[in-house]
Amino acid sequence: MRLLLAAGSTETGLIDGLSAAGASATVMGYTPSADAEILVYGRPTAAPVTPVSPTGCPTPAAITRAVREVVGFDATVLKAGLSESTAAPTVDLAADPGADVREAVAVPDAVGIYDRARQFGATLPDDRVLIGETIPGGTTTALGVATALGAPIGVSSSLPRNPLERKRAVVETGLAASDLVPGDCAGDPLAAIRAVGDPVQAAVAGVAAGALEAGVDVTLAGGTQLVAVATVLRHAGIDGPLRLATTSFVADDPSVDLEVAGDRFDLEVVVTDPAFERSEHVSMTRYCAGEAKEGVAMGGALSLVAPDEMAAVRRRIEAVCERLGVDGETTAEDPRSPDARGDGDSP
Amino acid sequence: MRLLLAAGSTETGLIDGLSAAGASATVMGYTPSADAEILVYGRPTAAPVTPVSPTGCPTPAAITRAVREVVGFDATVLKAGLSESTAAPTVDLAADPGADVREAVAVPDAVGIYDRARQFGATLPDDRVLIGETIPGGTTTALGVATALGAPIGVSSSLPRNPLERKRAVVETGLAASDLVPGDCAGDPLAAIRAVGDPVQAAVAGVAAGALEAGVDVTLAGGTQLVAVATVLRHAGIDGPLRLATTSFVADDPSVDLEVAGDRFDLEVVVTDPAFERSEHVSMTRYCAGEAKEGVAMGGALSLVAPDEMAAVRRRIEAVCERLGVDGETTAEDPRSPDARGDGDSP
Repeated sequence: MRLLLAAGSTETGLIDGLSAAGASATVMGYTPSADAEILVYGRPTAAPVTPVSPTGCPTPAAITRAVREVVGFDATVLKAGLSESTAAPTVDLAADPGADVREAVAVPDAVGIYDRARQFGATLPDDRVLIGETIPGGTTTALGVATALGAPIGVSSSLPRNPLERKRAVVETGLAASDLVPGDCAGDPLAAIRAVGDPVQAAVAGVAAGALEAGVDVTLAGGTQLVAVATVLRHAGIDGPLRLATTSFVADDPSVDLEVAGDRFDLEVVVTDPAFERSEHVSMTRYCAGEAKEGVAMGGALSLVAPDEMAAVRRRIEAVCERLGVDGETTAEDPRSPDARGDGDSP
Repeated sequence: MRLLLAAGSTETGLIDGLSAAGASATVMGYTPSADAEILVYGRPTAAPVTPVSPTGCPTPAAITRAVREVVGFDATVLKAGLSESTAAPTVDLAADPGADVREAVAVPDAVGIYDRARQFGATLPDDRVLIGETIPGGTTTALGVATALGAPIGVSSSLPRNPLERKRAVVETGLAASDLVPGDCAGDPLAAIRAVGDPVQAAVAGVAAGALEAGVDVTLAGGTQLVAVATVLRHAGIDGPLRLATTSFVADDPSVDLEVAGDRFDLEVVVTDPAFERSEHVSMTRYCAGEAKEGVAMGGALSLVAPDEMAAVRRRIEAVCERLGVDGETTAEDPRSPDARGDGDSP
């Protein structure tokens, strides 16, 4: 079993009010690089930040890492458009960061990224892989691709209140800038990514396609961003078995209907509830309050935890957070402002 | 505990008769990339070869991987001058492959590679690291650097009969081409690497220096190539505690005096005898016959094995070799020809 994490960034993720407050836009560029280091090393090593929301909610990377420390699994990071360097070892897919979807072309090399990722996926020696993502702004590009494919899906948010209208407006502008209307890319999912997607989608879809060819059991580990990738795969004519493993926080999000998505894209949906309500630590209470929800393959990692290990995982999350310098106390700040935090499943 | 593997290549490694038969020179370019994949994935994935000597002796990567499967430890590969790509995730030190030491400059960017590696090493979150290498021709560049520093050391060989005279002739030509005589680089070890070394030396020395600064316990995992790196560190004025962990095959090599090296460079020397004579599998009998001896951090990995686990490691080596397609039978070919195989601790 191997967990693969595709890490990248876009200028879409920097759109004001959509993804993060201006004050943290600089910091956000480091989020995927820091997430990769947390997964591999247990804390950021070269990245200058620990991704934490204004209310103190830590990145899902902390949860995934905690599961890794309890359960033990190999983790491999794919460099899929990082804007900042990372000290984590990476498989380099030679991808540039994505542009702003409101430009004509968001991912000029979508086909190349997909092909390289597919080639990599086809050589994997594992029986089973989980594939997840870390890319700020990823639910907006998920909405973009699904809309371009004519398969609109509900997308989640790392915010308790989902800025869905803003995402839709950005996607609408992006489609117009690419001279597209919804559904225009049906059957040509790489054209959808090229126009209004992000490089991580091309990477995850490519790896999944290659792994399926090689007979590997594939789990898409994440929320609505991974539903969008499943849409991409089905529109590419790939009909192998696909599982989506996500958290109860995504499943409970009223913006999302996983059952419909599972039926439509022939996905086996696995939802794990980590019972975070049994902890008073901010890392877990904020998830219960609807923040973050998913990202960095968190739902996939949690699906590996046996029921009688979940208490150990919760204790380990506290230990990881202590190492990350994440205070156990929730701050008084109101997390309900859509300007406070990212727009994605990822922080 | 983390095992770090610096992987690179040089044109020195391609010198005819010194390092490999002409017929396998092309294949040899893939050796470090394949070694990295074997360490990380358990078999070559993208690399088109499994490094095996003409007599059927598999790369030490197979041994290190087998130990990893029994003992369990994190492994991180440093890209330190690879001439061929690898599907293993890597920390990219932005190093080019080394030139032929018989040219004026062997590693133009020795200082840059060292600095980047040092920066990486200083951020490592581990209490303890083992640092090893895979670079064909590495004992010739080891001899080169040690000679330029005026600290001649005996160097080992992956061949039962060490082509030492050829190595000395190459180093002599290399020093002359760099306008140096033995000892000219004393106190300036990066000048020695630049003139007659290889990029992996700069990488390993840099990571070790950075890790020592950060208070990490450092083990140089390998044979005489790592003794050369210890020389580099001492000539750089770094006086932190250093351990060398290698195999009994290196310790038993009459070309090598580890006790003298340990005294001279203030190295704690740890030698592990894996009792390969208890196996009839070619992967182990060839080591007993004096082939390969060390490489890919094999000695360091073996130092992690508890005495009562060594039998399990030997069984696992057979399983790894089966996965690699390495036949258990020794071929009839005479392994004593110096043209038959590489010149380094690494294959």
